[in-house]
Amino acid sequence: MTAPFDIAPLLAPGLPAPAAKWTGFPPYNFVGGHNAPEHVPVEALIAAASRVLQREGPSLATYGLNSGPQGYRPLRAFLCDKLKAHAGIACTPEDVLITSGSLQGLDLVNDMLLAPGDTVLVEAETYAGALTRLARRGVTALGVGIDGDGMRADALAAALDGLRRRQVRAKYIYTIPTVHNPTGTIMSEARRADLLALAQAHGVPIFEDECYSDLVWSGRRPPALHAMANGAGVIHIGSFSKSIAPALRVGYLIAHGDILARVLALKTDAGSGALEQMVLGEFCAAHFAEHVPKLTRALRGKLEVLMEALNAQFGTAAEFVEPKGGIFLWVKLPEAVDTGRLAQLALAAGIAINPGAEWTAERGGGRTSLRICFAHPSAATIREGIAALARVCHNAFGVPARMANVAGA
Amino acid sequence: MTAPFDIAPLLAPGLPAPAAKWTGFPPYNFVGGHNAPEHVPVEALIAAASRVLQREGPSLATYGLNSGPQGYRPLRAFLCDKLKAHAGIACTPEDVLITSGSLQGLDLVNDMLLAPGDTVLVEAETYAGALTRLARRGVTALGVGIDGDGMRADALAAALDGLRRRQVRAKYIYTIPTVHNPTGTIMSEARRADLLALAQAHGVPIFEDECYSDLVWSGRRPPALHAMANGAGVIHIGSFSKSIAPALRVGYLIAHGDILARVLALKTDAGSGALEQMVLGEFCAAHFAEHVPKLTRALRGKLEVLMEALNAQFGTAAEFVEPKGGIFLWVKLPEAVDTGRLAQLALAAGIAINPGAEWTAERGGGRTSLRICFAHPSAATIREGIAALARVCHNAFGVPARMANVAGA
Repeated sequence: MTAPFDIAPLLAPGLPAPAAKWTGFPPYNFVGGHNAPEHVPVEALIAAASRVLQREGPSLATYGLNSGPQGYRPLRAFLCDKLKAHAGIACTPEDVLITSGSLQGLDLVNDMLLAPGDTVLVEAETYAGALTRLARRGVTALGVGIDGDGMRADALAAALDGLRRRQVRAKYIYTIPTVHNPTGTIMSEARRADLLALAQAHGVPIFEDECYSDLVWSGRRPPALHAMANGAGVIHIGSFSKSIAPALRVGYLIAHGDILARVLALKTDAGSGALEQMVLGEFCAAHFAEHVPKLTRALRGKLEVLMEALNAQFGTAAEFVEPKGGIFLWVKLPEAVDTGRLAQLALAAGIAINPGAEWTAERGGGRTSLRICFAHPSAATIREGIAALARVCHNAFGVPARMANVAGA
Repeated sequence: MTAPFDIAPLLAPGLPAPAAKWTGFPPYNFVGGHNAPEHVPVEALIAAASRVLQREGPSLATYGLNSGPQGYRPLRAFLCDKLKAHAGIACTPEDVLITSGSLQGLDLVNDMLLAPGDTVLVEAETYAGALTRLARRGVTALGVGIDGDGMRADALAAALDGLRRRQVRAKYIYTIPTVHNPTGTIMSEARRADLLALAQAHGVPIFEDECYSDLVWSGRRPPALHAMANGAGVIHIGSFSKSIAPALRVGYLIAHGDILARVLALKTDAGSGALEQMVLGEFCAAHFAEHVPKLTRALRGKLEVLMEALNAQFGTAAEFVEPKGGIFLWVKLPEAVDTGRLAQLALAAGIAINPGAEWTAERGGGRTSLRICFAHPSAATIREGIAALARVCHNAFGVPARMANVAGA
């Protein structure tokens, strides 16, 4: 009965490589959407959990609580208020689907729209997880150039015209307009209007990913594309991962009823986790408005530390534009540096960074760029980690040319 | 900007029908895996949430807490203890993957193994959700006959031989051995040994779904197939949905490392909900052993009420075998009754039941059977609901021939 069993001949075609064994986080962890542990609102979450369970605990015996498959209704109601106030989105709880993180929203929209051979438009630099998901489905992700105001209208027009000439209708335009990943820019309102007009002219829906949009230093942001279009042809996703805590896995999807009914039919998980929804619903109604500015101030402080450390260690060799919010910095190094190789060498030294190529749609792009996430490490760890990174980079590529701290080099 | 947008021309091929609007639960709700609301251990869950958040709350800032992608380590450790004690499974936390309900486990295993045109073997009557998932993938589900001891060895041998003659290697044998859905039987240990020998002889893995296996009236059950095979060629899934609360969406998958690495590569959700895992880990270590027998006693009591109500209302027209655990009863009505039609008529009268055809692999099977879930409604609701069902059935099919309660008919 106990002879070994070889599963390999039975595997479905086209699987990703097996997952590597997890061996813990490196000492200097500058990757992933982790947040500041010292700013998890632990006491308020405990109070929220106690209150909501005391009041509604027995409803856990029912799939979907008493709210149905779209998610815990008080959380959907909170989202409608928040999205109206922050992003100008007019929606009702009927338009909201709670998802298991915004990643599930991404997967569900892809399930709904994409087949192998399809084409979508993305920002030239964009979220690596979106790119790997598209590649796995055999979908072409065409990169559209960006600048400090977001996706360039001329570049988008050219891309759409090019597709039209080939009689290809893109399945969607994927954009991260508010705190763009990885560059940290915020798309201007004028650019949003351009994008909507082009999308509508070409009959292509917009897939708006706003998972970082709560973390804006100024606290103000332009209206969401969904708001400007009254929802027509726009699917909007967001998350509590960045504003409260990533391990909670609660996101949301806002779309018109015809789209929501399609997405919901594909959400075959019998609902997202109810306890997290209940606790967030209870917490956010009372505390979201005060919590988020506290968190963003702390993140802004860590960004300052990171930028100072880069200036001190890399000098002019590290170029970056200060992001307008978020948890990451997009850095360009000189031509001599291959950040793919740098990431490997750094990891061997206990420093994790994202090489730019993984955040770039165009093959061969992003070779000298890297993404540094700064929300999780302490200020001291950021300083030490960037110094250690500079040493690795100096030894491998001669960049920076001279080390700031010779004693530590 | 606000012209309506028609998504229909952009949809991927082969989508399921759009989801219907949720309009709440019917007054007599005998479908779905809902549990007894009066037995959700609310106070202990509140205490567990407070304790674990007080101790480890800041780790919510990290994806996967500090436990990595396989899930919260204390919960995995609890599962190893529980599975060893209850089901004889020898495993370590490295062999356990926490999933978002056992449904995610089902989807991940299907993702790993199945392509359109594949064949799997299932019990002739089995979980409707497994059947619809297979149908959506274009996979053939071959039903294997069952009796009071579970999947029949002669029927399985014949099915495997038939496939071999056609040079088809089934991708897996899906079984719900311990509290079978929908019949409530428990596969005998001898039958388990037969099944393992046949599976091994034909090189077909076993997919063992034990999501109901904690709810056994006697508190004792034979060893899991996974245990008897030392894990070789067996993928085991289970859930806390039935033993604690379904809305929590926490399940697990146990398999050897090569399979787990494949499954994990397909689990692209950045982890299952951490708060639910933390609360369950904390709760279960202290309370699982005392909670489950209390719950099963209560469920056994509701089953008694249901069986009495069926006897009182339907008399000999309703045939059933008393299940050995679980939350449902599988009932056979006379030939005159089409339970598909009955389910429609009953729903119009506020009574939800599962028609047998949906729980049957063979096309055209299960026409006179139905599944009645009894965990959620109160005893009074069960009695009223079965009386109401008998009235609907009598009026449509003349079954039962005479109503027990003429005044109410």
